Amino acid sequence: MGVQETVREQALEAKYAEIDLALLSDQIKNKILFAMADALIIEQGRILNANALDMKLGREKGMRGSFLDRLLLTDVRLEAIADGLRKVAQLPNPVGQIVDGRTLPNGLTITKVKVPLGLIGIIYEARPNVTADAIGLCIKSGNAVILKGGSEAINSNKVISDVLAVAGEHAGMPKGAIQFINTADRTAVDALITLNGLVDVVIPRGSAGLIQMVVKNSTVPVIETGAGVCHTYVDFSANVDMAVAIAFNAKVSRPSTCNAMETLLVHKDIAEKFMPLMLAKYKQAGVIIIGDDGSRKYDDKIDAATESAWGTEYGDLHVNVKIVNSMEEAIEHIRKYGTGHSEAIVTENYANARRFQAAIDAAAVYVNASTRFTDGFEFGFGAEIGISTQKLHARGPMGLPELTTFKYLINGNGQIR
Amino acid sequence: MGVQETVREQALEAKYAEIDLALLSDQIKNKILFAMADALIIEQGRILNANALDMKLGREKGMRGSFLDRLLLTDVRLEAIADGLRKVAQLPNPVGQIVDGRTLPNGLTITKVKVPLGLIGIIYEARPNVTADAIGLCIKSGNAVILKGGSEAINSNKVISDVLAVAGEHAGMPKGAIQFINTADRTAVDALITLNGLVDVVIPRGSAGLIQMVVKNSTVPVIETGAGVCHTYVDFSANVDMAVAIAFNAKVSRPSTCNAMETLLVHKDIAEKFMPLMLAKYKQAGVIIIGDDGSRKYDDKIDAATESAWGTEYGDLHVNVKIVNSMEEAIEHIRKYGTGHSEAIVTENYANARRFQAAIDAAAVYVNASTRFTDGFEFGFGAEIGISTQKLHARGPMGLPELTTFKYLINGNGQIR
Repeated sequence: MGVQETVREQALEAKYAEIDLALLSDQIKNKILFAMADALIIEQGRILNANALDMKLGREKGMRGSFLDRLLLTDVRLEAIADGLRKVAQLPNPVGQIVDGRTLPNGLTITKVKVPLGLIGIIYEARPNVTADAIGLCIKSGNAVILKGGSEAINSNKVISDVLAVAGEHAGMPKGAIQFINTADRTAVDALITLNGLVDVVIPRGSAGLIQMVVKNSTVPVIETGAGVCHTYVDFSANVDMAVAIAFNAKVSRPSTCNAMETLLVHKDIAEKFMPLMLAKYKQAGVIIIGDDGSRKYDDKIDAATESAWGTEYGDLHVNVKIVNSMEEAIEHIRKYGTGHSEAIVTENYANARRFQAAIDAAAVYVNASTRFTDGFEFGFGAEIGISTQKLHARGPMGLPELTTFKYLINGNGQIR
Repeated sequence: MGVQETVREQALEAKYAEIDLALLSDQIKNKILFAMADALIIEQGRILNANALDMKLGREKGMRGSFLDRLLLTDVRLEAIADGLRKVAQLPNPVGQIVDGRTLPNGLTITKVKVPLGLIGIIYEARPNVTADAIGLCIKSGNAVILKGGSEAINSNKVISDVLAVAGEHAGMPKGAIQFINTADRTAVDALITLNGLVDVVIPRGSAGLIQMVVKNSTVPVIETGAGVCHTYVDFSANVDMAVAIAFNAKVSRPSTCNAMETLLVHKDIAEKFMPLMLAKYKQAGVIIIGDDGSRKYDDKIDAATESAWGTEYGDLHVNVKIVNSMEEAIEHIRKYGTGHSEAIVTENYANARRFQAAIDAAAVYVNASTRFTDGFEFGFGAEIGISTQKLHARGPMGLPELTTFKYLINGNGQIR
């Protein structure tokens, strides 16, 4: 059987599990998740052995240290993953919630009720913890799942999904609800993203290249978890100390995340007070500054920003700085270079706060806070399967409710039209 | 300038109008819609002349009568279209609604607020009324719109969109918010559905071929308004008269619509009472019956159903009939051949009603009512841009709220992470 045919068979098997899975009570789903968590600890030896093999192959291939660290599993990390499954179990069940309804003049009642999406395809890279996280979120939301992980973690991912599938089925999960595509063959991805009618949604998680490939080639609906070119605009009226603290935090606290700031926009009327403090603080932290002519007046060692710099998601300690003549210029800049992820204004001016939040088209628009808060856990969702930068279905951090759709139940006593 | 470049320019112009459009008050939007409605009547002469040209070209091309009828505009039909715009104006404004929110332990407030999607691409065929309907719904929901209609109605569509754009701009609509792609060149569609970053969503309306082409080739998110292979299952416990009335209505009242029934599934224990009445009623109405062996026992003139018949959306007075041994067999059949649109059970059995509604995965699942009610107007939404058969973002009839997304507004006083 070829790769395409294998993936199709797996999707069919998952689809078969889908109805029963959608009808599971929350009690059973929680029992399944707790059993999975326990199994990760019981089967720790097998999992760590498989991971050691991935680590060995990674080192042989000359994988970078930061990649190796993402790949590495330890008993402590496994315990954290197991704990994550238990926490997901304790979140509110998103399925069965009645979100709307009405009785029509003809007596028909219409009830809009949340139901699972069906079969979710997850395409991801590197971190083997995603295998367990994605399985946990999909099962809790009543969805079957088909996983295609990166080849560098294939042994770890395979064992984890096997362990969770077996433990889940013992606890009452329909057989076949978890499918792991056990091949490094890239054509498996092409097969998965064109299974219309079987796969209900594909969620890619990983590099911009992976996500763009999936968006471009998938005929199945995709939830894009895209890049974050996030901005902070320091208004003329900003509290300078607050602005420095926010712009520092947004860049430095964890620069590799998509909610980290890439570009700082500073109103010309506050630049003289703000820039020396900000630049000193950035330099202390080893931040490399790239700037427009206006900002380079404050430090002639700042590299000149090229056009491409403004659209770059650095993911490290680089930051772009630009002096703007007005808030509208800042809004225009964000409109041009932002990716619709998270944008912030620091201001003490009521009208500007309101105007900025209304005019900026992004998943999260902040006043006087760091963009770093855009996160399912920080937002209080209790879980996160990714951060959507598209506008359809889900926008911003996606928790359990974003893994559901709804259906209309219409009850009558013989109504015809 | 080539077609691709022209479409891109138009999308850019619409994108430019987008911010101002999103910020329009409902009062202004309503003023715009009423002005558009008036303009349709004032410019009736121009519109009917353009339509006469389309009709002439259609007749010359040998277009079928039913197509010509869909293409035709009259003063009465124009008045109805204008009235539709006025009705949309009177619907609740979907923009600005606060749908969720919370205050985090650190004092940050998070407000989830509905906002327009941005720029919506509508690709449609034949009926020129879609031009005005789509423009009305998009403007009321604060979206810019780019329209690509069928070549057979291009003259009517062009004049209607021009008239509405001019009237709208006079009443306060941002310039460029309505874009009509004025070419019969099919590559314009390819250009439109790959404008990621400019076009936020594409909604195809028309034949299955058009919709599948868009789903397959679009890199922009699509809302699929797909086929309806709808079923009615007559349970052993059904009230026979009610079952006959519902199955008759579902097939005959308007067979060309996607919510019309294509297949009737009958429990074996009620078949003897039900089938003679049903078949007689269908025959009276000229319905052509295609059946399995079980149903052919009741009339040997029934054509035998082939495998492909069960998956066919006839759109006319053909109906498939099958006798099933159990409700579970009916559910299995619907699962295999249904398109997730509308499915119905006729039953007096409480447990079966509950089981059917839980187990069937479709946008609308009926107990004791005709599938023909799946419609934005019937559901009380006051408008409809189409009926989604996909699960992401919108499912079932789509009204104004489905043309919005949301953003999170986060307000703080210096919070960092």
